[in-house]
Amino acid sequence: MQLSLSVEHSGVYTPLMKFCGQCGASLRQQIPEGDNRLRYVCSACHTIHYQNPRIIAGCLPIYENKVLLCKRAIEPRLGKWTLPAGFLENGETIAEGATRETTEEANANISIIDLYTLFSVPHISQVYVFYRAELLDLTFFPGIETMETKLFKEEDIPWEELSFPSVSQTLEYYFKDRRDNSFQFHEGNIRVSYKK
Amino acid sequence: MQLSLSVEHSGVYTPLMKFCGQCGASLRQQIPEGDNRLRYVCSACHTIHYQNPRIIAGCLPIYENKVLLCKRAIEPRLGKWTLPAGFLENGETIAEGATRETTEEANANISIIDLYTLFSVPHISQVYVFYRAELLDLTFFPGIETMETKLFKEEDIPWEELSFPSVSQTLEYYFKDRRDNSFQFHEGNIRVSYKK
Repeated sequence: MQLSLSVEHSGVYTPLMKFCGQCGASLRQQIPEGDNRLRYVCSACHTIHYQNPRIIAGCLPIYENKVLLCKRAIEPRLGKWTLPAGFLENGETIAEGATRETTEEANANISIIDLYTLFSVPHISQVYVFYRAELLDLTFFPGIETMETKLFKEEDIPWEELSFPSVSQTLEYYFKDRRDNSFQFHEGNIRVSYKK
Repeated sequence: MQLSLSVEHSGVYTPLMKFCGQCGASLRQQIPEGDNRLRYVCSACHTIHYQNPRIIAGCLPIYENKVLLCKRAIEPRLGKWTLPAGFLENGETIAEGATRETTEEANANISIIDLYTLFSVPHISQVYVFYRAELLDLTFFPGIETMETKLFKEEDIPWEELSFPSVSQTLEYYFKDRRDNSFQFHEGNIRVSYKK
């Protein structure tokens, strides 16, 4: 599953729901007993349909002094360069999700180093998590959602053509930490929206 | 929203869905074009209903040489001691969610220090995130989902009466890091289930 904004992943942080997934009856918005937020509640079977933020897991694949970027073949941000990343699936650890996405988008063989950045993006109810990873060989090639896969030195990074603020921030932290020769975990919030 | 396992949060990592939330028609499980996993797809409007892991955000509130624990007044793990934590809500940063849960469960005034532990718990499709936090005063008291709030020194921690592995692990890391006088971010996976 990719970073596309479908109906389900529309960027609206309380997506509209009309019918109960359990019994098919109509839903209404109400604050359940003991709760303090509006939820979708079934008028017939009273199931409460919670909606919660989603996690996007990805990698920063490193080969010598270069990082691997993917040119997006899908919306949003078609044609922009990104780190391989996508929605975490049920039953996965975050590292497993990050590794899977790196395989799906870049067919890259990697070895996870450590968890490197985590960003809350509250206006779209998403959390981005990137791992530093060692790119093990040069056999990578584009997956179906990728136009091009390419290694970039710091001076060649297409900063104006990156896909998402979380990707830009992760790359900025990486090159700074590399200059300082001190890699540390970084956490932050991204409150701006990206340009269409 | 708390750590309760309702129908929605049942611990089954692919909860059953029968009807489309958009149009009310019946759902079927199929692999959508360009995907590689079974999803619930509407037979009428073709909406794909993705299901993804949820984040539980919490705090490790510290006052001098003590940590604040909450005795759970709700299932699961009724009567067990926990760190204040609960499901991250749409529109929140993880730190905001952790702070809100600490207020709701312990009415505690805290100041976030830093992100301290992150655990993937894939068998229940959850990710736990705990922040170190400074407890600012002693005016805390139980919220509606808490029986008792209490400060514990290391030697008094009720290790056999803790709620969840992520809580035990966070406390273990904390006391070890405090002895070493070196606090660092910890990430890991929890693959065991907790006892009923």
